[in-house]
Amino acid sequence: MSDSAKTAVVLVSGGLDSATCLAIAAAQNYTCYAMSFNYGQRAVSELEAAIRIAKRAAVVEHKIIQLDMGVIGGSALTDNAIAVPEHESEGIPVTYVPARNTIFLAYALSWAEVLGADAIFIGVNARDYSGYPDCRPAYIAAFQKLIHLATKTGIEGKTILLETPLIDLSKAEIIKTGNRLGVDYSLTVSCYQANPKGEACGRCDSCRFRMQGFREADVADPTHYQ
Amino acid sequence: MSDSAKTAVVLVSGGLDSATCLAIAAAQNYTCYAMSFNYGQRAVSELEAAIRIAKRAAVVEHKIIQLDMGVIGGSALTDNAIAVPEHESEGIPVTYVPARNTIFLAYALSWAEVLGADAIFIGVNARDYSGYPDCRPAYIAAFQKLIHLATKTGIEGKTILLETPLIDLSKAEIIKTGNRLGVDYSLTVSCYQANPKGEACGRCDSCRFRMQGFREADVADPTHYQ
Repeated sequence: MSDSAKTAVVLVSGGLDSATCLAIAAAQNYTCYAMSFNYGQRAVSELEAAIRIAKRAAVVEHKIIQLDMGVIGGSALTDNAIAVPEHESEGIPVTYVPARNTIFLAYALSWAEVLGADAIFIGVNARDYSGYPDCRPAYIAAFQKLIHLATKTGIEGKTILLETPLIDLSKAEIIKTGNRLGVDYSLTVSCYQANPKGEACGRCDSCRFRMQGFREADVADPTHYQ
Repeated sequence: MSDSAKTAVVLVSGGLDSATCLAIAAAQNYTCYAMSFNYGQRAVSELEAAIRIAKRAAVVEHKIIQLDMGVIGGSALTDNAIAVPEHESEGIPVTYVPARNTIFLAYALSWAEVLGADAIFIGVNARDYSGYPDCRPAYIAAFQKLIHLATKTGIEGKTILLETPLIDLSKAEIIKTGNRLGVDYSLTVSCYQANPKGEACGRCDSCRFRMQGFREADVADPTHYQ
């Protein structure tokens, strides 16, 4: 099997991180299949961004899974009764969706097994959002172990790799990497409260991390602000 | 906190195993929340059975999650292009849905964390269906580890227990246990090809395991056959 025959399922949210992750997978000669989730998140514009990003990257297929997450509740991102704070306090953010990455990765694993894919890429980052338990390296290692045990391919001796190329990078390092790989960050939406046109609020934590990242990376910020 | 204040999310498929699992959780003084999935499985009657079973068990709430699994394909249970065989050959059955239990457990985990539940019960069994990788004790142990790392409660030092009371039992032992706990097996549907009235085909592997179980348990078989 030639190097170019490697395939990967890449989780694409529409944000800056996953767009960079997709570019990294492609740069590693993976043939990419993109997967996104529609889970009643407030920023539908984020999903539209995911569609633009996957299209620009010319993925083989982009699967958008309808997730029934709103019925579970418990997060400011899916539950309209909890307001999104402009600044997070210490500890675990209220924007934390219980077991969200576990659900995302479970779907990615299912598709990866059907495709016979070699890897799953997820753009989690343990530095900027260290409050999320399911962005930590120990969590990723546990999911890698689970993949090996959960799958037919695992029994047959081949493990689907769980790749997290951004996990140790700062926002500025992520932006520098993506910039070098030609990622068009004007397509991405990071804001939790973007308007229907995909314009960012410029005030929430996610916006502030992003602005600071562009500043530190010394890359012009192409974000559309309200 | 008194013993009766323990809460559990119990996965209920509508089959014999999960009905027994629910009865066991209740017998262990758990206040039960039932969760089922509608994932385009052929036997919709199985889902109707799940509703009857949860109602009879007087669970606090029964959440039915709409799963977008058919779009992934790869199994005779969700893909109409693959016929369900009457007899499975050796190895991993074609009725295997890639990562199905991982997806189910990820949702159960999300709800359990929102509820502040103490446990998740799943009626997996490693004996009768040993071909499924995600029914093995090693898989369950890996998911338990993942729960600890994926959750806010895990960080706070409390782990949601993943309980699999049926994992080592034979079908006959499961039926004897449920019979002792008063499970009404006439409410359950095990058949992969049950008709709209919930009547079983009596010929598929699932039906044959079930019939044999009642025979070996010396319990009258209340199944409605076509």
